[in-house]
Amino acid sequence: MAGNSFGEVFKISTFGESHGVAIGVIIDGCPPNVPIDIDFIQNELDKRKPGQSKITTQRKESDTCKILSGIFEGKTTGTPIAIVIPNEDQKSKDYDHNKDIFRPSHADYTYQAKYGIRDHRGGGRSSARETAARVAAGAVAKLYLNQQDIDILAHVSSVGKLNAAEIPFTTAQDFIQKRENNIVRCADENMALHMIALIDKVRKDGDTIGGKISCSVKNCPVGLGEPVFDKLHADLGKAMLSINAVHGFEYGSGFDGSQMLGSQHNDTFISNENGTISTNSNYAGGILGGISSGMDINFRVAFKPVATIMSTQQTVNTAGEVSEIKGKGRHDPCVVPRAVAIVEAMAALVIADHLLRHKVYQ
Amino acid sequence: MAGNSFGEVFKISTFGESHGVAIGVIIDGCPPNVPIDIDFIQNELDKRKPGQSKITTQRKESDTCKILSGIFEGKTTGTPIAIVIPNEDQKSKDYDHNKDIFRPSHADYTYQAKYGIRDHRGGGRSSARETAARVAAGAVAKLYLNQQDIDILAHVSSVGKLNAAEIPFTTAQDFIQKRENNIVRCADENMALHMIALIDKVRKDGDTIGGKISCSVKNCPVGLGEPVFDKLHADLGKAMLSINAVHGFEYGSGFDGSQMLGSQHNDTFISNENGTISTNSNYAGGILGGISSGMDINFRVAFKPVATIMSTQQTVNTAGEVSEIKGKGRHDPCVVPRAVAIVEAMAALVIADHLLRHKVYQ
Amino acid sequence: MAGNSFGEVFKISTFGESHGVAIGVIIDGCPPNVPIDIDFIQNELDKRKPGQSKITTQRKESDTCKILSGIFEGKTTGTPIAIVIPNEDQKSKDYDHNKDIFRPSHADYTYQAKYGIRDHRGGGRSSARETAARVAAGAVAKLYLNQQDIDILAHVSSVGKLNAAEIPFTTAQDFIQKRENNIVRCADENMALHMIALIDKVRKDGDTIGGKISCSVKNCPVGLGEPVFDKLHADLGKAMLSINAVHGFEYGSGFDGSQMLGSQHNDTFISNENGTISTNSNYAGGILGGISSGMDINFRVAFKPVATIMSTQQTVNTAGEVSEIKGKGRHDPCVVPRAVAIVEAMAALVIADHLLRHKVYQ
Amino acid sequence: MAGNSFGEVFKISTFGESHGVAIGVIIDGCPPNVPIDIDFIQNELDKRKPGQSKITTQRKESDTCKILSGIFEGKTTGTPIAIVIPNEDQKSKDYDHNKDIFRPSHADYTYQAKYGIRDHRGGGRSSARETAARVAAGAVAKLYLNQQDIDILAHVSSVGKLNAAEIPFTTAQDFIQKRENNIVRCADENMALHMIALIDKVRKDGDTIGGKISCSVKNCPVGLGEPVFDKLHADLGKAMLSINAVHGFEYGSGFDGSQMLGSQHNDTFISNENGTISTNSNYAGGILGGISSGMDINFRVAFKPVATIMSTQQTVNTAGEVSEIKGKGRHDPCVVPRAVAIVEAMAALVIADHLLRHKVYQ
Repeated sequence: MAGNSFGEVFKISTFGESHGVAIGVIIDGCPPNVPIDIDFIQNELDKRKPGQSKITTQRKESDTCKILSGIFEGKTTGTPIAIVIPNEDQKSKDYDHNKDIFRPSHADYTYQAKYGIRDHRGGGRSSARETAARVAAGAVAKLYLNQQDIDILAHVSSVGKLNAAEIPFTTAQDFIQKRENNIVRCADENMALHMIALIDKVRKDGDTIGGKISCSVKNCPVGLGEPVFDKLHADLGKAMLSINAVHGFEYGSGFDGSQMLGSQHNDTFISNENGTISTNSNYAGGILGGISSGMDINFRVAFKPVATIMSTQQTVNTAGEVSEIKGKGRHDPCVVPRAVAIVEAMAALVIADHLLRHKVYQ
Repeated sequence: MAGNSFGEVFKISTFGESHGVAIGVIIDGCPPNVPIDIDFIQNELDKRKPGQSKITTQRKESDTCKILSGIFEGKTTGTPIAIVIPNEDQKSKDYDHNKDIFRPSHADYTYQAKYGIRDHRGGGRSSARETAARVAAGAVAKLYLNQQDIDILAHVSSVGKLNAAEIPFTTAQDFIQKRENNIVRCADENMALHMIALIDKVRKDGDTIGGKISCSVKNCPVGLGEPVFDKLHADLGKAMLSINAVHGFEYGSGFDGSQMLGSQHNDTFISNENGTISTNSNYAGGILGGISSGMDINFRVAFKPVATIMSTQQTVNTAGEVSEIKGKGRHDPCVVPRAVAIVEAMAALVIADHLLRHKVYQ
Repeated sequence: MAGNSFGEVFKISTFGESHGVAIGVIIDGCPPNVPIDIDFIQNELDKRKPGQSKITTQRKESDTCKILSGIFEGKTTGTPIAIVIPNEDQKSKDYDHNKDIFRPSHADYTYQAKYGIRDHRGGGRSSARETAARVAAGAVAKLYLNQQDIDILAHVSSVGKLNAAEIPFTTAQDFIQKRENNIVRCADENMALHMIALIDKVRKDGDTIGGKISCSVKNCPVGLGEPVFDKLHADLGKAMLSINAVHGFEYGSGFDGSQMLGSQHNDTFISNENGTISTNSNYAGGILGGISSGMDINFRVAFKPVATIMSTQQTVNTAGEVSEIKGKGRHDPCVVPRAVAIVEAMAALVIADHLLRHKVYQ
Repeated sequence: MAGNSFGEVFKISTFGESHGVAIGVIIDGCPPNVPIDIDFIQNELDKRKPGQSKITTQRKESDTCKILSGIFEGKTTGTPIAIVIPNEDQKSKDYDHNKDIFRPSHADYTYQAKYGIRDHRGGGRSSARETAARVAAGAVAKLYLNQQDIDILAHVSSVGKLNAAEIPFTTAQDFIQKRENNIVRCADENMALHMIALIDKVRKDGDTIGGKISCSVKNCPVGLGEPVFDKLHADLGKAMLSINAVHGFEYGSGFDGSQMLGSQHNDTFISNENGTISTNSNYAGGILGGISSGMDINFRVAFKPVATIMSTQQTVNTAGEVSEIKGKGRHDPCVVPRAVAIVEAMAALVIADHLLRHKVYQ
C-alpha cells in the first residue's frame, strides 16, 4: 500500500534517505541460476553517481554497493537479493538551512503535510539519491535480460530546445560506445557538443535546464503485457513517471500521433521469410493493445529542470511566513546525463517483470 | 497478476468482451454509507455510449447498467459492488471477416500470439467497449469524491492540429455545461465548431483522426500520493495509458517543461490569508514529489487515430499470408468526444483510491 | 485491500449478498485454452446447494450459474471469467425479525460495528451463501488441475465425536463414489450411517453440531509453495480458515505432531526405481519447508456448530438492550456435508494458483 | 509473487540466509511519528536468539540489529524502515557435510527441486534464522500497538504431552514476568519445571520434542478483519503457519469446537454498563464473521519436533543414492521457548496491519 515497491514478479522494494545510514533495495522474484557480475552492477551505478563530470553535481559519493543475500557461488538462488549502498557524503550540516523552510518546487512542503514529519537533510526520501537503489536492481534485471538477448538502450535526445538526430548504429555495444563517448550521454556526438556547452552555460548562470531521454527495447519477444490495465506501455509509463523530475511520457507516435490520420498512422503487417510477422512502420512503438508485437519498443521521457538553482528565491517557511532561500550546495545543472542509467534500469525492471508474468501462460 | 484489476483500496476488476453476454465490473473497497444514485451512473455511461451523434459510431448500445450487490437501501455497505452491462448489439456475424485476419494497428495479432486463442468478434476483450465498465466504476468513485467536494473536469482540448483555448469558467457545473453544449465535448465552444467540421470531413473520407483530452482535478486535498513508486502522477499516468488508443501522458509543464530553465519553472510558495499555502504559478501541475500540493492537478492525454478506416489495407492473415482488409462496419472517426467520460472515470478512480490510501496515515 | 479477492495468479474476486440480486465471481488469471464443461461446474455447485437431503437446510435454491465472459467456443481465452448465480429464494421478509437484533455467534454485531451499516437479510455478505461463488471458481480450477492429473479429495471425517476410519480406495472416482453414496459425504460408509443418525437427532432437538473435513491432494508435483510467507500449507490454511464456521486447520501430523519426538516424526527419504524420491512415512503432510514434496498433501479442517438453533436465546439488540431471539427459518443442523465441496474448491484454487506461480521459475 | 513479503499496509519483506552476510527486513507502511526504542527491539530479538539457556541451541549469535533508514530524530517518518542483523557465527564449514545430502524432514530436497540451486549452509533461506527479521519487524509493530494499548501475550502452553494450566494474571507486565521467570517461557511456573526437565532429558537423548504456544491479543478494538477472505483469524492462521515447524492453528474453541453442539457453543451477547457489548463466554475466540468483536482474541499454534536429531538416520543424497546422515552441530531440542517471540511478532504484524486497513473505513 505504501508505495515503495515496484513490479509483480520481479519485484523491488527500495529504502533509504539521502543522508541516512544507507540506501538499498530488496529484489524478490529474480529467477534462480542467473549469474551475477558485481562489476557490472557497480558499472551501472557509476553512470548515475554524482561527481562524474563538470556538468554533473560535484558531490562525491562512490555509491559502492554490497550484496547481503540471495547469491550463492556467484548465482542467484531464487531468494531475495538485498543490496545496500552506504551513504558516505553525509554532510548533514549543509542542510540545516532547509530545516525550517519549504524549497520551491521541491517536495519539502508536501512531505511535511502528508506525514507530519520529514527528514529535511538533502530532501530525505524525496531525494533522487533513492534512484541509485533502482539502478542496482535494474542492473540485476539486465543480467537476466541479457540471457534472453534483450537490450535496453537509452540516451539523451534533447537538452532544452536542442534535439539529437536519430543516429544509425550497428550493435548495442556500438550505441553504448557512441553515447558514452561524451559526458552528456547523447548518441548524436555532434549535437552532444552543443548540449554540453548549453548545460555548462546554464550552470555558470546558476540556473538549471530540462531535457528528454529516448529509450528503445531491442529484441523484446511478442506477447509481453497484461491487458487491460497492466498494458506494457502503461507499466513503462508508470515506471518512468515515478522517476524524480519526470513530467511526461509518450511511446511510438506519442503526442504527435494525436495530430495524425488513421490512414497515415496504421502500421502495415508484413510476413517475413523466416515465418515471423512484423510491420513496415512502427507508429505503434512496438506495442499493440498493450502487448509487445516483436518490433522495437520506443518511448520518450520528459524531465523538468532541477528545482535547486543558485539564486535567491522567495518562499514560505514551516511557520507559513514569507521567507527567502539562497541557492547553495552542489547540484546538477541538468539531470538527463545521469538519468539515462535510471531510465534504462526502470525499463529493464518492467521488461523483466513482464517476461516472468508472461511465463504463466506457457 | 493478470492485469484486469486497478487500484489498491478503491479497487476495480473489469470483465467482458465486445460481443459476449455482458461486460461489467466489481468494485471492492468503496467505503460504506455512500449514497448511490443509479441515474448518475447511467448518465455517465450515456456520455461514453455509441450512437450519440453524427461524429461517433452509429452502433446502437443502450449500455444500461444493473447493480447486483453491495448496495442496501440506496447506500453502499462496504461490500463488493458488482455492476453488469449486457451486450445488446451482438451482431457477431458482422465480424466473421475478422476471424482469420490481423487488422492493422489492432490487437488481433498480439492477442493471438500471447494467448494462443482470441475472441475475434469486435476485438473481444481488446475492444474499447471494456471501458464502459470503467465509466460505471468511475461514476461510483465520483459519487464518493462529490462528498469531499472534489471535481474531475475533462474536455477535448485538441482534434488533429486544432487546439482549444483555455476558457475561464466559474463552477464545475458551468464547465460541464459549456462542454456538453457541443457534440465534440470541448469547452471552447468556438473551436468546437471547427473540430466538429474536421471530424465530419475525416469521417466522410473514410478516415480517422487523433486528438487530446485535458483534465483537471479541483479541490484535491494536500497529501495524496505514495512515493516513491506510486506517485500520484505516476498512477494517473498509468491509468490514462491503460485507456485504448492513448499514446502519451504529461502533467503540469509536461513535455514543454523539458525546454525550460529552473528559474522559469519553479513555482513560488505563497502564504494565504486563511493559513493555507499555495503557489503563484503551477508548472508542477498540482503535484510535488509525487504528492498533491492542494493546487489544481492538470494533465493531458494524447489519443492516436482509430485504427479502423474505411479503405482497403494490406495486411497478413492468421496463416501468415499477405491479405487485404476492407473497411466496413460502424466505427468512430475520432475517439476523443466519447473518451472524455473515460478519462474522467479513470482520474476519479485514482483520486478516490489515493484519498483512501492516505487515510491510513491519519 | 478489502478482502474479497483470493490468489495471486489464479485470482478470484467474489461478490454478492444472501438476499441481493445475485452472487458471483470473477476469475482473473485462468490460463487460456482450458476446456470448460459447464455441467461439471453445475455439478460441483449441486454438492453445496441447500435442500439436498433431510440433514441439510430445506431452503430451495437451484444455484444455477451463468458464465458472462472469458469463454470462447468452449475454451478459456485468458481473459476474466465472470460467473453469476442469481438468488432465487429471496424471502427477505423472513429476515425482518433480524433487522434490529444481533444474533448470538453470528456476524451481525461485528459487521454493524465495522461498516456502520449492514444488509441484515439472511446475514447479507456474511452468509455462507457467498461460498457458492467459491465453488463455481473452484470447479474451473479443478478443470485446469485435471489437465495435470491432480485430484483434490475431501470427505467428512468426523461429526461431533464420531470419527471415520481411514478407508482404502483405488482411484479418485472410487473415493468420490464411496463418499457420494451417503448424504453425509463420508467415505467410511459404515460410520456415515451413525453420523447421519446423530445429525438427524440433533436436528430434531433444534440444535446443531460441529464436525471435521479431511482433504488430500493427489499427484501434486514437487516444488509448489513460495517461502517464506506463502508456504503452501500457509496458503491452504488461510484458504480453509476463510470458510464460514472454520475454527482450526492442521496438516500432516498436525496438533498430534506437537506431542511427538523428532526420532518418531522424521520421514525417511527413499529412492524409487523410477528415479524419483519419496518418503516412507508422511508426517510432513506432503510439504517440506513450505514446498510440496510430491507426497500426498493431507490436511484437516474443524468446523464449529452452526450458530442458528431452534431455541430461544438471550441476546442484545441494536440499541444495546437485552433482548430475546427465537429460532426459526430453515437452517443446517451440521454444515460439513455441504462444506466438502467448499473445502475442495478452496484447495483447488490454492493448488492452481501455486502451480501457476511456480511456472515463473521454469 | 515470490513469497517474502507479508501484510498489506504494515508490510514487511525479509531477506537473508542462515550463513550469508546478513539477514534483515524492510518495513513499508509503518505510520509516521511512532517513537522507536531500539533497546526494545533488541530485547525482543534477545528472546529469540540462540544460546539463551541450556534448553536452547548453544550456537552464539548476538543478533544485534542496526536500523538503516526510516527513522529521524527517534521517530518513524512514514518511509521504509530497513533493519539489518549481521550473521556472526558463519562457520560454513560446519555444513559442508550437508552439501550433497537431503536431511530428513528438512527443506533441502524441496528447495533443490524447486529452484535447481540451494545454499546448503545451515539450511540457507529455509533456516529459522530468518525469523529473527520477523521479530525485529514485530517489535516495531508492537511499539505502534502499544500506542493503542493493545497487548500481545504468548507463552508455551505445552511441551510434548505436558500441558500448562490457565494461570490468572493482572497486567501484561505480570504475565510477561511470570513467563520470563523460567527458561521454557511458560506462565504456569509449576508446570514450567516439568517442561524444562522433559526438554533436558530429550536433549540428553539426542532427540527433540514438539510443543504448543498459546497467544492472546488484549484490548483489540472491534472491527478488525476484512471478510470474506482476509478474515482476521485467516490472516492470523497464515501468519502462524508461515513460521518454521508449525503444523496446526486453531482459534477460540478450535478443534474441540467441532465436537460441540450449537447450544453449548453460542456466546451470549451482554450489554455492559459503559455502553459496550461483550459476550459471557468466548468460544468465538474474539472474532465473529472474521471481524474482531472486542473480546480477547485467543489462538493456539502447534509445533512439530525439530528435525535435526543427534542419531544416525538413513536418507538419500543429491545423486538419489541411499545414504546416511549423522547428527552433529548445535541445535534446539525444542523450539517453543524461542518461538514465543516469533508468535508474538507475527501476531503483532497482523494486528497492526488490520488496524491500519480498518482506517480506510473511518
